[in-house]
Amino acid sequence: MIDRLRRYVPILDWGRHYDRRAFSNDLIAALIVTIMLIPQSLAYALLAGLPPEVGIYASIAPIILYAVFGTSRALAVGPVAVVSLLTASALGQIAEQGTAGYAVAALTLAFLSGAFLVLMGVLRLGFLANFLSHPVIAGFITASGILIATSQLKHILGISAHGHTLPEMVGSLLLHLSEVNWITLVIGASATGFLFWVRKNLKPTLRKLGASPLLADILTKAGPVAAVVATTVAVWGLGLADKGVKIVGEVPQSLPPLTLPGFAPDLLNALLVPAVLISIIGFVESVSVAQTLAAKKRQRIDPDQELIGLGAANLGAAFTGGYPVTGGFARSVVNFDAGAETPAAGAFTAIGLAIAAVALTPLVYYLPNATLAATIIVAVLSLVDLSILNKTWRYSRADFIAVAVTVLLTLGLGVEVGVASGVAISVLLHLYKTSRPHVAEVGLVPGTQHFRNIHRHAVETDPSLVTLRVDESLYFVNARFLEDFIQSRVTDGTEIKHVVLMFSAVNEVDFSALESLEAINHRLTDMGVGFHLSEVKGPVMDRLRRSHFVDELNGKVFLSQFDAWSSLSPAKLQSAAE
Amino acid sequence: MIDRLRRYVPILDWGRHYDRRAFSNDLIAALIVTIMLIPQSLAYALLAGLPPEVGIYASIAPIILYAVFGTSRALAVGPVAVVSLLTASALGQIAEQGTAGYAVAALTLAFLSGAFLVLMGVLRLGFLANFLSHPVIAGFITASGILIATSQLKHILGISAHGHTLPEMVGSLLLHLSEVNWITLVIGASATGFLFWVRKNLKPTLRKLGASPLLADILTKAGPVAAVVATTVAVWGLGLADKGVKIVGEVPQSLPPLTLPGFAPDLLNALLVPAVLISIIGFVESVSVAQTLAAKKRQRIDPDQELIGLGAANLGAAFTGGYPVTGGFARSVVNFDAGAETPAAGAFTAIGLAIAAVALTPLVYYLPNATLAATIIVAVLSLVDLSILNKTWRYSRADFIAVAVTVLLTLGLGVEVGVASGVAISVLLHLYKTSRPHVAEVGLVPGTQHFRNIHRHAVETDPSLVTLRVDESLYFVNARFLEDFIQSRVTDGTEIKHVVLMFSAVNEVDFSALESLEAINHRLTDMGVGFHLSEVKGPVMDRLRRSHFVDELNGKVFLSQFDAWSSLSPAKLQSAAE
Repeated sequence: MIDRLRRYVPILDWGRHYDRRAFSNDLIAALIVTIMLIPQSLAYALLAGLPPEVGIYASIAPIILYAVFGTSRALAVGPVAVVSLLTASALGQIAEQGTAGYAVAALTLAFLSGAFLVLMGVLRLGFLANFLSHPVIAGFITASGILIATSQLKHILGISAHGHTLPEMVGSLLLHLSEVNWITLVIGASATGFLFWVRKNLKPTLRKLGASPLLADILTKAGPVAAVVATTVAVWGLGLADKGVKIVGEVPQSLPPLTLPGFAPDLLNALLVPAVLISIIGFVESVSVAQTLAAKKRQRIDPDQELIGLGAANLGAAFTGGYPVTGGFARSVVNFDAGAETPAAGAFTAIGLAIAAVALTPLVYYLPNATLAATIIVAVLSLVDLSILNKTWRYSRADFIAVAVTVLLTLGLGVEVGVASGVAISVLLHLYKTSRPHVAEVGLVPGTQHFRNIHRHAVETDPSLVTLRVDESLYFVNARFLEDFIQSRVTDGTEIKHVVLMFSAVNEVDFSALESLEAINHRLTDMGVGFHLSEVKGPVMDRLRRSHFVDELNGKVFLSQFDAWSSLSPAKLQSAAE
Repeated sequence: MIDRLRRYVPILDWGRHYDRRAFSNDLIAALIVTIMLIPQSLAYALLAGLPPEVGIYASIAPIILYAVFGTSRALAVGPVAVVSLLTASALGQIAEQGTAGYAVAALTLAFLSGAFLVLMGVLRLGFLANFLSHPVIAGFITASGILIATSQLKHILGISAHGHTLPEMVGSLLLHLSEVNWITLVIGASATGFLFWVRKNLKPTLRKLGASPLLADILTKAGPVAAVVATTVAVWGLGLADKGVKIVGEVPQSLPPLTLPGFAPDLLNALLVPAVLISIIGFVESVSVAQTLAAKKRQRIDPDQELIGLGAANLGAAFTGGYPVTGGFARSVVNFDAGAETPAAGAFTAIGLAIAAVALTPLVYYLPNATLAATIIVAVLSLVDLSILNKTWRYSRADFIAVAVTVLLTLGLGVEVGVASGVAISVLLHLYKTSRPHVAEVGLVPGTQHFRNIHRHAVETDPSLVTLRVDESLYFVNARFLEDFIQSRVTDGTEIKHVVLMFSAVNEVDFSALESLEAINHRLTDMGVGFHLSEVKGPVMDRLRRSHFVDELNGKVFLSQFDAWSSLSPAKLQSAAE
């Protein structure tokens, strides 16, 4: 009972061993992460089309709930770039940005997403995330990064533009280019340049100047905060807000409010599919990060429990004024590198952010949106990695097509279409490949009992005996292919007395394939040709025995292909007799 | 050039060898088929919600166009039960039955369907039909048969009812049951009983009475005509139309008219998905029939060319007042049994039907709808075969689930949802099965070079050497599974020095799986464990060589598992030295 509870509430496990050393490590990590998260949370809320404080609220309750229910020790949960983009895309079809309906829809999206994740976790459906192949994820993340960076250009330029696809965004930017606000552009461009410089060069420079690694690290992480302070002071001191520079403005000073998502059937209906998509993508991103970090410390995470942890975090976001969240790459890596030992580091981060929400929000009144856009652009451009196109092109055309389709459709038709097409195309390409399986005609490698492809190896063959190694499980997609293949091979050679199907690579025979095997047996019997199987695996044989196929087979089932060859090949018998 | 033309226009091939014997055989077959088709065409038009003459028009141009472009020598193209039901279901969402919009939508559906089939044929996508597994097709046909028979009960009872799902139909029938027209019921019930009797007993009875097989056959096929004549005469003679018996009424005396499908974007948009569905289901039904008949005469059909033949037939239907058509089971079998030798039999049938359309239509004025409903019920109940549920239950739960879902959803939510869910569930179940592949730990069968599962066979093993036979292609769905499996197997046994993956059943390694193999290699290297592959197939090895994996592998790739065992097992070396 206690063990069962511990499985679902991992805090009961690590909480027992919590000590002073872990406490101080967690506290330092929390400090660094909090400094990084304040501007990032504001920025991602902006990306999602929500008021800036929503980004901070979405980092507080979720991070605590994940600490209680999650299994990763280093994962930091909160708003992330891709999920914010997906949120903006989903809500844009429901309500206008800035309306009350938009904010309620964001809560509802978090609620549906949380409920779906918990449901998947309880049903132990974590394996579904495997349907997103690595190349599709890589392509999707890269394309999303490009979309997100492009979507922020309007803030850098100080113009209004919109759109959910790359052509829409670029077109809209070009149309409004004449309205550019030059002061905003100067602020945005300097902030972007400064942040790129910090990311690339600040740490080595500080180390050269003799700073300790920890200090260098904290100062580097504080780069966005420096940009925020400098541009805010500039806008306030020079009165730039009156000259058209868009600023964050009034942000309520408050702990996360208690909120209720909307439960109108129309709203739930419209948000269901986006919520499922956000859940799965968020889950995949989060689990990849968590597994990478866990492997470094030889820890394990439990994907099904992760679903419950992330689900709880999203339900928390739904009731405390947030929007959909997941485990983020950047914040988790920072947390891990800063030495976080347990999920308690997350709880301390939450306390830090709560203090910020209550005490620091008046300070961001004059913060220009362009600075927040700069932090987003610098963060997401590190996600863009087009080398996956090159790598998959060299290795496999099918994988390349899947990536290319994902990238192009994400950019051209939007994130939902892009990722859905990526999944669909990888499944279809897999089915296509298995629909025309490789069938090798095999012969005996001399001096062994091993059989290989007659076209690749120097092997012994016997014209009266055709052995076909079918390199695929037999199921409905390729059942008819095998029928046709054997039919044409047998009508080609008149001396053929026996056909052996070598089943070493056949991992399944489904009902459709069973019917095809029965048809093949029937036809070969009519033609006076023996039909045999060899090397049928245990699970496949168990299955075949449930039908009448083995009884009706005109030949035999041999344990090994060598047995089949020894029994059926007269040439072999002759040479053995010599 | 000529050869290429012949491939696309098969009539150029068989037309050259056409002689008098084939001509007379074709003519007799055409006569029998024409007699059968007259009532059937009227009935299927009724099922599709269209005026009766549309059924005859849809049998004329399509049959000729298929004769020119199709590859099957016996296939008879025209309206069939399942496609008529799908048509009614698709058009019911667009327009009211009996309106001009409904008829135009039917033409548009045929046009879209034809265009899609031709496109698939030109792109050589015939293999897509394989995505419908045998059990799903069987379940769908059975459920459709039940739906169709139920949909006709209203005509037998003489009441009005509607609905596209079984619960809707039954509910509607029960609601209107009090309005039953008893005279109609007597006509409908007797016609149904008579037709069942003809189908089961007439042929043996006639043969016993000394009739020749051909005559017995023609008379049996003429059963529906007899029912039509008898009930028409009864309605006319007794003036039953005035007593509420619904009759066919005025049917224009005309050759098929030239018509234009609608090209309004809204209409095309609304009908696109149903057209794709009708095309694929019609194609699958047609190809199954054609292949069955071709196999009996050791002829071959070309599925890609069949797409073009059926596409041309549907385009023909769209421009000559018809609706979607395909190769029908009943009519093709009758055509084949009656001795049709070439597609010319189809052309003669078309002439027969054209004569009927011009000369015989006034005769069906008093034909009661109940009789047509009876012919439909008797025809489709022969399609209902629930034994597929039983067979798949015994053989494989996954196949059973696919059939059960298809049957239940087709009956409960309609034909489109049913068949789409059937396809989706069979693909998902396949992916699910491959996502958790069977991995067998293998050892040497004593006295051979053959390796089998240590849990199923008495084999030699070596504690320092773990050989895992992965019984599945490695691809994105199961890539992570293998990582976890090896990780936990290796951490279990501290004596393990080498891990060999026996790749005899691995038919593909995609990019995601390659990344997993690299991760495994990395981890095992860290742990000081050797990582080797054996029995890697040619195509898989070719692919792996395109990456750096083989160079980075800390162990070797062995041609056979026996080689790996001989090199890596100290126990083996010892026993060889003894």
